[in-house]
Amino acid sequence: MKISVLRIGHRLVRDDRVTTHSALVSRAFGAERIYMTGIDESVSKTVAGVAKRWGGEFEVQIIQDWKGLARTWKKEGGKVAHLTMYGINIDDAVQKMRMEDRILVMIGAEKVPREAYDIADYNIAVGNQPHSEIAALAIFLDRMFKGKQLKKELAGRRLRIIPAERGKQVRETR
Amino acid sequence: MKISVLRIGHRLVRDDRVTTHSALVSRAFGAERIYMTGIDESVSKTVAGVAKRWGGEFEVQIIQDWKGLARTWKKEGGKVAHLTMYGINIDDAVQKMRMEDRILVMIGAEKVPREAYDIADYNIAVGNQPHSEIAALAIFLDRMFKGKQLKKELAGRRLRIIPAERGKQVRETR
Repeated sequence: MKISVLRIGHRLVRDDRVTTHSALVSRAFGAERIYMTGIDESVSKTVAGVAKRWGGEFEVQIIQDWKGLARTWKKEGGKVAHLTMYGINIDDAVQKMRMEDRILVMIGAEKVPREAYDIADYNIAVGNQPHSEIAALAIFLDRMFKGKQLKKELAGRRLRIIPAERGKQVRETR
Repeated sequence: MKISVLRIGHRLVRDDRVTTHSALVSRAFGAERIYMTGIDESVSKTVAGVAKRWGGEFEVQIIQDWKGLARTWKKEGGKVAHLTMYGINIDDAVQKMRMEDRILVMIGAEKVPREAYDIADYNIAVGNQPHSEIAALAIFLDRMFKGKQLKKELAGRRLRIIPAERGKQVRETR
């Protein structure tokens, strides 16, 4: 099962940090790539810098037309999951979703257009309370991958953390 | 087991949305309150508005001196957990932490002072990769409460979501 993330509805400057967090969570929790619309370049730079130091092959792709992307995704046999507090509880849907081959998981900013609900094969709630698309994405990926990503080692990393009870222990691996 | 959250290192304006997300995640994932330093008033207003509509008794407290708060917490028998990518993997510590009575979980912005590591009884990593304090907090609370908060009903709510495969179904309960 492979998962990509689609971030829609980014508002310039105001959402930069939230979008950066979304991208870093996508990477750290095992997604292959994130598609984003209309972001500041600093977001992709930050993520590229992290990937260089900490390994893995995560991709950031800037796109113009998220609906076109989602439609193509479906046409090629992939499924689309949209995270929304109005959807079906993730714990009631995760087993079925794990059997899918390729999932595009959509997260929005505050206002998400109606089309997002319609285009989705799964509208998934990470709890039915308002909170954060970053948190929702993290829990979604954690459930889909059964928590295994938290101990995964990424190839090609320059830096590696040695878990410590206090302070910071980092090893440079080349 | 009761959990409160302490958000440190908020930088004015720049971090407002990330702090708001942290507060909403604390509430939605079962913490009792969040302590925050030096935030914009809009953050507490947003959270108060959410609690009014969606129920529960979550508290936001603005504090000046986070070290004083953490020390008092410990003096009164509570434990302090600090979320950091350099710490012990959460899955190796969660069982022990679940036996604690009261936990104060600290999350920082980009730069966290050395004292945070020293004052903590537990330095906990939600994976040893850089990502997001919002995601780390969500996973921490989810692990601590064994995912049960995602279906919890909160008392005193005005609005209630009926989980739906498509679109939005909200019921007003009074």
